[in-house]
Amino acid sequence: MTTRRDFLTALTAVAGVSAAWTAVRAMGLTEGTIEWGGAPALPPGSGKGAKVVILGAGVAGLSAAYELGKAGYVCTILEARDRVGGRNFTVRHGTKLKMDDGTDQTCTFDDDPSLYFNAGPARIPSHHLATLGYCRELGVKMETLINHSESGRIQSDAINGGKPIQMRQAAYDTRGHLAELFAKSVRNGGLDKEMTKADQDQLMAGLVQWGGLSGGKRTGGPRVPNALPAAPAGPLAYGPSPKSGWIVPPGPLDQHGTPRAPLPLETLMHPLVAIGGTFHENVDMQATMMQPVGGMDMIPKAFERVLGPVVKKGCEVTKIARVGKGVAVSYKDKHTGKAHKVDADYCIVTIPLVVLAKIPNDFSADRKSVIDRARYANSIKVAFQAPRFWETRDEQYGGLSFTDRDTFITWYPSGNLMGKQGILVAGYSFGEQADRFGAMPLDQRLAYARTTVEKLHPGHGAPLNKGFTITWGKVPYNYGIECALAEQDPAGYTLLSSADGPFYFAGEHLSHAGAWQQGAFMSSHRAIALLDAAHRSGQPVTTARPFGHA
Amino acid sequence: MTTRRDFLTALTAVAGVSAAWTAVRAMGLTEGTIEWGGAPALPPGSGKGAKVVILGAGVAGLSAAYELGKAGYVCTILEARDRVGGRNFTVRHGTKLKMDDGTDQTCTFDDDPSLYFNAGPARIPSHHLATLGYCRELGVKMETLINHSESGRIQSDAINGGKPIQMRQAAYDTRGHLAELFAKSVRNGGLDKEMTKADQDQLMAGLVQWGGLSGGKRTGGPRVPNALPAAPAGPLAYGPSPKSGWIVPPGPLDQHGTPRAPLPLETLMHPLVAIGGTFHENVDMQATMMQPVGGMDMIPKAFERVLGPVVKKGCEVTKIARVGKGVAVSYKDKHTGKAHKVDADYCIVTIPLVVLAKIPNDFSADRKSVIDRARYANSIKVAFQAPRFWETRDEQYGGLSFTDRDTFITWYPSGNLMGKQGILVAGYSFGEQADRFGAMPLDQRLAYARTTVEKLHPGHGAPLNKGFTITWGKVPYNYGIECALAEQDPAGYTLLSSADGPFYFAGEHLSHAGAWQQGAFMSSHRAIALLDAAHRSGQPVTTARPFGHA
Repeated sequence: MTTRRDFLTALTAVAGVSAAWTAVRAMGLTEGTIEWGGAPALPPGSGKGAKVVILGAGVAGLSAAYELGKAGYVCTILEARDRVGGRNFTVRHGTKLKMDDGTDQTCTFDDDPSLYFNAGPARIPSHHLATLGYCRELGVKMETLINHSESGRIQSDAINGGKPIQMRQAAYDTRGHLAELFAKSVRNGGLDKEMTKADQDQLMAGLVQWGGLSGGKRTGGPRVPNALPAAPAGPLAYGPSPKSGWIVPPGPLDQHGTPRAPLPLETLMHPLVAIGGTFHENVDMQATMMQPVGGMDMIPKAFERVLGPVVKKGCEVTKIARVGKGVAVSYKDKHTGKAHKVDADYCIVTIPLVVLAKIPNDFSADRKSVIDRARYANSIKVAFQAPRFWETRDEQYGGLSFTDRDTFITWYPSGNLMGKQGILVAGYSFGEQADRFGAMPLDQRLAYARTTVEKLHPGHGAPLNKGFTITWGKVPYNYGIECALAEQDPAGYTLLSSADGPFYFAGEHLSHAGAWQQGAFMSSHRAIALLDAAHRSGQPVTTARPFGHA
Repeated sequence: MTTRRDFLTALTAVAGVSAAWTAVRAMGLTEGTIEWGGAPALPPGSGKGAKVVILGAGVAGLSAAYELGKAGYVCTILEARDRVGGRNFTVRHGTKLKMDDGTDQTCTFDDDPSLYFNAGPARIPSHHLATLGYCRELGVKMETLINHSESGRIQSDAINGGKPIQMRQAAYDTRGHLAELFAKSVRNGGLDKEMTKADQDQLMAGLVQWGGLSGGKRTGGPRVPNALPAAPAGPLAYGPSPKSGWIVPPGPLDQHGTPRAPLPLETLMHPLVAIGGTFHENVDMQATMMQPVGGMDMIPKAFERVLGPVVKKGCEVTKIARVGKGVAVSYKDKHTGKAHKVDADYCIVTIPLVVLAKIPNDFSADRKSVIDRARYANSIKVAFQAPRFWETRDEQYGGLSFTDRDTFITWYPSGNLMGKQGILVAGYSFGEQADRFGAMPLDQRLAYARTTVEKLHPGHGAPLNKGFTITWGKVPYNYGIECALAEQDPAGYTLLSSADGPFYFAGEHLSHAGAWQQGAFMSSHRAIALLDAAHRSGQPVTTARPFGHA
């Protein structure tokens, strides 16, 4: 029986992703109703005992072993560290981190499952179907990741006298001011060339609703009228709106509720407000986002439980060689110091390119050149344990705050709401900001992050303690957080996406969803589909096309 | 020692809420840093064994008994039902509901703590400090209530060919179109009278960022520039934006990600889109919202555990009399059928006014008249158990959808994400919509709600089963969900907010936060502050002023 899904899988294999999606739309299927991002269903037993060695136990490597194992391949994962997950790294009581900047930290957070922070990936959007699919399949318990709270704060010494601005002020005051100006502009005839008077009237009715013009009255209970009420004839002004927050909330007696006065538009047009206030609107940042309960590393740990002895930890790869049609990978057991070798028919390489470049290998010259040229972006996080003053004093439960300091994002915990203690990520930044932050002596980094929190929550820098920080550019076996190869080197990206004899490359760098676990999973799915097609046909498959996951 | 807080409490007692808040602002305290909404701290032992009878074990009555008990008052709560909570009502396996429309339901959801729905209050905003304060104080475990998911849907047969529109389309397509029109209008000279050219340039730079004009490129990693880049000289058009969702998400190979085409502005200006798409922006609906794990009734149950024998259930009040300076309340034990009487020094009356009006009482004539005139709004909910197709097929985790059918809101569960089964609230509506829905025969109500879900999630009406519905206007001991007395009858509201001899009134109807537990709690705080002030002074306190909760 050919099901709709079979048809789409076949079509994708032959004609590629875009063609398959054109067909999806032509078949009248609604977007989002296809199990997009699921693993390719390899024919059962297809591997027939063929050996695959997988380099790296990040989520790309783990999922490759998991899927290939289902299809009868015999896999071995070599992982240099004593833990799985790679950049998926959760820091909690006792976690150790030695970086190339000379620092050597042991996390002193209290020993409590709710007291952790995710040093690498920390959120999963609703449309990352591969990631969520594995959580579902492997029974990883999930909860909401609060990526946006309207109580989040934006603080810069350059605006509002240095006082923090709430997200709700940034959003609704900006919109209110713009709606007021827009309405003026329309009344001044600014759209007379573009629209009929009747259409302008409709537009004005919309602007009044949307911007909260003419008094900013509290919205009553939801009702659905047949049409929006016409805009009043008088001046259309944006005034204090409850959407931007209460000074005095509604209560008993004469306590009707007093909304805040709007911030001036020039304050709201500051780049930090524009960026911080709309960060959660980016499609990958939109609600609903999720996280595994207890830490992101519940995902690699779930794979590890299923894979068992397939994963060999503490094994540092020292040489990657071609032998006949297959491969031989040499490695050092870091605990015994002894050298070993694994022979296999195929090899999936998920090691970050900057690390891979330093390992002797038999890749083709053009691939070597791509690998040598690749550069990774830096990123830092810094976290403290503290009583949850952000909840008890500042009405903030989860979400992000932004400053223009080098710590950039402050991130509040989504789990165990109302717990006594929490882990506050007091800095998360990228690129130059991360480079500057990571270049400070360790004590200074912690002091700097404390000052950030003091600016966001005046009077609350002090209770922060047990600081821990990571600079991904200085972390052995990573040396960076994201490659963005497709942008850096489009031709190199395409080349590494195809097979190099027995070698197949995977990892976030081989997707357009870089720095996301979803990208790593999808690159792994592409790699195993290629590998399995080659294995079944007995011929090397160099095209990047033989894969379908509809 | 006079602390800042003591000063504010005293000031509030003398001069009222507004004056105290003026002082708060004059003292330079930041908004949100005061423990607003906490209970009045009655002097310890202040009650000295005085007796208080409290009518109704909703959250107003429970919190009154709890606070008065701390201060040495001896309280008795009379509750007609065999459960506490009043409108705080959680429906799960075995819950029974007999309504005055002749229906008699027993909930058949599977017996599982995650399979419930909150028939009354179902969300708590971050600024409802009284409600959240009690959750914290009583150890009620909390989790995120996802009130908004960008995957939520808006569906009307009148627009978009009846196909559902995602929230993200409503938000970002609307903004993009408006920004494009606004930019045109400015370039046409619409603001030449209002702004200098330089200010217009700044505004245009903001519009480009904010509306995603000129190609709608995917936003890169967050960076904070010193100024927003100037608007390009050419046409500023809103195009397909990833913010409005992917047709094909970014992935491996050439899968860059294909965003949806924008919906036309006329579709987006439909009242349902304007209302449904901005519902979560109302200050009481803004993220972060919370819910107790396992059901909203964990709150009244927590009070009940602490209060123990203070709460007498199954006791229906039959007469409320004045006796000397005190009261005598007669009631019928519904289980034995026997009549009883409680004598007390004071009485706190939290019974909904439409129910109270039918109980013989000795209230003053003017108060009787207020009570007799009061009217309550109707509201319905309808829920089904189903496999979580909204998560597995439609990328929707929690949040709301809207239709212009009489079911209005469809509400997805926030707890136990990725569970096998979930409870879908397939209708939540108010006023006329609720009246029409509630007037249908029971089977028809369930079938109607199934059709709503079928329209929102084509192909998924069928798996809904074990339907259960409530029409608050037909529920004994409630006969409505919200009074909004302050709007209906401002003078009556003020009158009932003051003492009537030994009688003190409380409940959501005596606050400007009607229909919220926060309003009920704050009205209770006002009532007990009045009562305690009267008790300590030995004089009736008729002013509504002697209360402070700063």
